[in-house]
Amino acid sequence: MATAGKVIKCKAAVAWEPNKPLVIEEIEVAPPEANEIRIKVVATGVCHTDLYHMFEGMHKDGFPVVLGHEGAGIVESTGPGVTEFQVGDTVIPLFISQCRECRFCKSPKTNQCEKGWVADSYDVMSAAESRFTCKGKKLLQFMGTSTFSEYTVVNQIAVAKIDPAAPLDKVCLLGCGVCTGFGAAVNTAKVEPGSTCAVFGLGAVGLAAVMGCHNAGAKKIIAIDINPDKFEKAKVFGATDFVNPKDHNKPISEVLAEMTNGGVDFSLECVGSVAVMRSALESCIKGWGVSVIVGWTDMYDFAAKPIQLIAGRTWKGSVFGGFKSKDGVPEMVKAYLNKKVKLDEFVTHNMTLAQVNDAIELMKHGKCIRTVLSVSQQ
Amino acid sequence: MATAGKVIKCKAAVAWEPNKPLVIEEIEVAPPEANEIRIKVVATGVCHTDLYHMFEGMHKDGFPVVLGHEGAGIVESTGPGVTEFQVGDTVIPLFISQCRECRFCKSPKTNQCEKGWVADSYDVMSAAESRFTCKGKKLLQFMGTSTFSEYTVVNQIAVAKIDPAAPLDKVCLLGCGVCTGFGAAVNTAKVEPGSTCAVFGLGAVGLAAVMGCHNAGAKKIIAIDINPDKFEKAKVFGATDFVNPKDHNKPISEVLAEMTNGGVDFSLECVGSVAVMRSALESCIKGWGVSVIVGWTDMYDFAAKPIQLIAGRTWKGSVFGGFKSKDGVPEMVKAYLNKKVKLDEFVTHNMTLAQVNDAIELMKHGKCIRTVLSVSQQ
Repeated sequence: MATAGKVIKCKAAVAWEPNKPLVIEEIEVAPPEANEIRIKVVATGVCHTDLYHMFEGMHKDGFPVVLGHEGAGIVESTGPGVTEFQVGDTVIPLFISQCRECRFCKSPKTNQCEKGWVADSYDVMSAAESRFTCKGKKLLQFMGTSTFSEYTVVNQIAVAKIDPAAPLDKVCLLGCGVCTGFGAAVNTAKVEPGSTCAVFGLGAVGLAAVMGCHNAGAKKIIAIDINPDKFEKAKVFGATDFVNPKDHNKPISEVLAEMTNGGVDFSLECVGSVAVMRSALESCIKGWGVSVIVGWTDMYDFAAKPIQLIAGRTWKGSVFGGFKSKDGVPEMVKAYLNKKVKLDEFVTHNMTLAQVNDAIELMKHGKCIRTVLSVSQQ
Repeated sequence: MATAGKVIKCKAAVAWEPNKPLVIEEIEVAPPEANEIRIKVVATGVCHTDLYHMFEGMHKDGFPVVLGHEGAGIVESTGPGVTEFQVGDTVIPLFISQCRECRFCKSPKTNQCEKGWVADSYDVMSAAESRFTCKGKKLLQFMGTSTFSEYTVVNQIAVAKIDPAAPLDKVCLLGCGVCTGFGAAVNTAKVEPGSTCAVFGLGAVGLAAVMGCHNAGAKKIIAIDINPDKFEKAKVFGATDFVNPKDHNKPISEVLAEMTNGGVDFSLECVGSVAVMRSALESCIKGWGVSVIVGWTDMYDFAAKPIQLIAGRTWKGSVFGGFKSKDGVPEMVKAYLNKKVKLDEFVTHNMTLAQVNDAIELMKHGKCIRTVLSVSQQ
């Protein structure tokens, strides 16, 4: 492409400081260096983790930053040493890398690659350095991806090549939320056919978890949310039963125990609340119940009584649904194209990058499942 | 036997109230009723759970009670409907039953039989009724076993028939502590060959966990205790490395991370302290570390940061090492007779039932691994 090897000037939504709206700025994106790929971002979802970083996580050193980590796009150019990707490839940038060489990548038990941005600067949720500058200032690259920009530069260990037939304004959701929830059910909880499941929280991640339970063959999937407007959507993804904790005067774990003869086989916490994490564990049946923490918070401890585990329950968690990212995302894209997993149903709003603050407001107020932003023309 | 069908008068150590020494009393033991077995207790270990009930758990409604739950003996007589046992059989009473009929017994995933004393009166750690009386008062049967008595009556779902060649003053330890620790490693953690393990707390349960890790083929077994006198014994059971937290100025999880390139594959908490439970989890490697809660407390919550699980760790627990009790105990007895598991090395003191309070004092002050009490002549 004509832009290869040159700095690209383009639009990006910049978070200059915490608790302030994003600002659409013209930024400079330097060419990819060794093993890096510059990607034209076509579409991006807006995920609660973006919001968390801006307003809740208070990573004060994590600014200025380009947020966004649920995108899809096209390879614009490649740096030295990149052999796996070519200009024009359809790709999804990955906030969790898969180097295929570290001991974590070599283990079938985990997707926690030791390389990538997490290794360097986990504390600010961003890569230690980036190819972004704006008004003379270096911008951080949120979660190593920064998809709220027309162009971004990502190391090849954190990019998945996907089927070029995939609609990018749908499969972008596989960059975070859908894989996170779906994988938590199928990979982390390992939901079994005929089992009973409970999913706490019916945002995109929770709905994807419902879909994971359904695809794994669960016979009863109890969808739980304090906003009953979400139940109709949960049904679309396979939920069979619906509980609003506000309708009950007793702990939700007791309500579920009564509905399930002692508790569910699998529970998934998709809220990011330590109180809900405890409820989710306590809602599992003794002996073999498995509870998975999917929602994110780093502000509090989760807790329970030792007997909860001693009685035979298991408490687990995962990032990105336990998917090895470069392997898993293309497979999920295929599953979508083969109609094995749903994506269209998550998208409640379509907007442009310029409307990113509107999308964030919708999310803040629970008015959307997912808003997909159109970032560049494909 | 001449005593069959009659009330037996015999000696037992009675706990009349919390925080007081046990009193050796003459008690009456009624004949076994339907599906029950009356057992002449030959030997019993003294376990920390007895101590806990007396002095720490403060189950004030759990008195008067005959403690002891780690015994072995001989069938004296059987009640109606007992077909599996005959007078003279060598047996170990089980504090966790195996009815073979409930959904928990039918599942290969758990040993949490739904029947037995736990179903009725878990709160006082004792069976709802017993065949014991003393001075006109009903005595509770601690954990459904009460082995601090020359005779006890147990439902047949909570008795294991064992090889008559087994020395009862050794295999009694399989009634609780040794199975609990050993099984936590092999059944619950599922320690793998070549793995790295940490065992927190080197009482009998912790030492049995060390032995479990060793038998499962772990290559590095780090034994941790604030009492370094225990390290020599831990070596006997297979520990390879020894850490006294008091020797370090930083969290034990950091010490272990440095010793193991990021954390252990498996950790076992054998103390019963919620602070140690947290340390044990945090000492596991991200991605695949498994931490098992073995030690018991019901007074506090255990807690951790969500990232600990989200990063791929698993928190589990088990009772009685996950062994299906009637199946597991005879197998462990065989393993001992075949020299696959050690028992003799746990026994540091031999006393008589009359000396039970001395045995409890030894345990309180960490001066023993296990004291075995001779209760009746075989």
